[in-house]
Amino acid sequence: MDDLSKLCIHTITTKPWSIEEAMDKYAEAGVAGITVWRQWLEGRDISRVGDELRSRNLEIVSTCRGGFFPATTKQGIDDAIEDNRLAIREAAELGAPMVVLVCGAVPGQPLVEARKQITDGIAAVLPLAEELNVRLAIEPLHPMYADDRSAINTMASANEVCDQLDHPLVGIAADVYHIWWDPDLESQIQLTAEKNRLFAFHICDWKTPTTDFLNDRGLMGEGCIDVPGIRKMVEATGFDGFNEVEIFSERWWAKDQDEFLQAITHAYLNHS
Amino acid sequence: MDDLSKLCIHTITTKPWSIEEAMDKYAEAGVAGITVWRQWLEGRDISRVGDELRSRNLEIVSTCRGGFFPATTKQGIDDAIEDNRLAIREAAELGAPMVVLVCGAVPGQPLVEARKQITDGIAAVLPLAEELNVRLAIEPLHPMYADDRSAINTMASANEVCDQLDHPLVGIAADVYHIWWDPDLESQIQLTAEKNRLFAFHICDWKTPTTDFLNDRGLMGEGCIDVPGIRKMVEATGFDGFNEVEIFSERWWAKDQDEFLQAITHAYLNHS
Repeated sequence: MDDLSKLCIHTITTKPWSIEEAMDKYAEAGVAGITVWRQWLEGRDISRVGDELRSRNLEIVSTCRGGFFPATTKQGIDDAIEDNRLAIREAAELGAPMVVLVCGAVPGQPLVEARKQITDGIAAVLPLAEELNVRLAIEPLHPMYADDRSAINTMASANEVCDQLDHPLVGIAADVYHIWWDPDLESQIQLTAEKNRLFAFHICDWKTPTTDFLNDRGLMGEGCIDVPGIRKMVEATGFDGFNEVEIFSERWWAKDQDEFLQAITHAYLNHS
Repeated sequence: MDDLSKLCIHTITTKPWSIEEAMDKYAEAGVAGITVWRQWLEGRDISRVGDELRSRNLEIVSTCRGGFFPATTKQGIDDAIEDNRLAIREAAELGAPMVVLVCGAVPGQPLVEARKQITDGIAAVLPLAEELNVRLAIEPLHPMYADDRSAINTMASANEVCDQLDHPLVGIAADVYHIWWDPDLESQIQLTAEKNRLFAFHICDWKTPTTDFLNDRGLMGEGCIDVPGIRKMVEATGFDGFNEVEIFSERWWAKDQDEFLQAITHAYLNHS
């Protein structure tokens, strides 16, 4: 059962490939969806990239990433909001229905303040998101990133921001890497789905030992995360979106990317 | 105000020093308390070490560490329980009123199962702890250690185990390094104290960037944790125990430990 119809790959997963290479390779391999990191659009005619993706039957799942709202100056806060507006416009131009938000944090700034700035920042860009009909998916990041990448570190915390904004375009991207350890994982996934805000599901694995805070993620099956179990929890809610493979790995990036892509589809079919 | 009367140092913080060196140096510096890691007792007459610590007016706050209960075989589980009984006997011999528990986890074992084994393991050693009047402090570990060090990763999760065991000798060691990011930090500290189970308070700092998962902790003031703020939360509950400096740092261990000890007392007085 080579069913890749719900497999999406993030362009950063195969970092050595340009968007042109990635779209050809993914399509050839039968991958059904793609999430495009914004760096892959630099210097490109974005709407044309969107057409090329669609012509290969690749569903554009989302772009990555907006966010990084908190700052310690008014200018910094304003710049972040402008960049998020740009991300929303880029997504619309590409034909992506969603932007994933890595919400941001500033070392030493109280997390409570960062969370307030995140909520305010999303509120500030929501009118444009409405106008262009682009969804915003808050991705709770593992607590080991609470210093400088995200003050939103659990599904519960992401749900709190969603509750405050209470808007159908604001939801959550659940990534197993960030949330697998959470004792409230299942109830939070259910709650998120009940509130119609489970927007995305990202998969990879947690290696033991992990040797780098950012770029040592594992392929599904290489680590300790029960990816099939979490996927079952997600699908039990009625979620029928993509399983998005998002792996940052110096180890895998150093290998032949064609082999890596084969390993991804194999791991997807056997360990997720 | 050189008030070091609530300063405790973990022997692992000054790893290059033996227990004999550490006790002399700490006492000379006016440090009031010591937490003894069990490796520092190897090959020693434990009760005599206790006498020597007391003769220098060093209060023995606890020993580190018991725990690591989960295993995948009956033998492994039994061995862990035996080692924890040994830890309790050692603490009693030393004259330490408490053993800190790093509860353990096995990569790939469901965390729910690990948590059950942890609860059962503590229950199995409780009779000996009662007999020798030794308290057991569950230390929730940062979620980045959920793969192989602890399945207990939040104060709430530790409180759940405590609720199940419901015993005055079972409580929690709160370490800022592990819990600073928690959105429920303040309420969990309050709840823990209300239940008379806030047994210990450990301090250090989180550096940005952190370059090693284990041994790159910062001295208070070197990172992003609001140690004074968390200490205020803890003391507002009526907690009047020690502030225990527990730092694993290749960087600091490579330096002159006399200078490090000076830096610790300075940081304690100025950044905690």
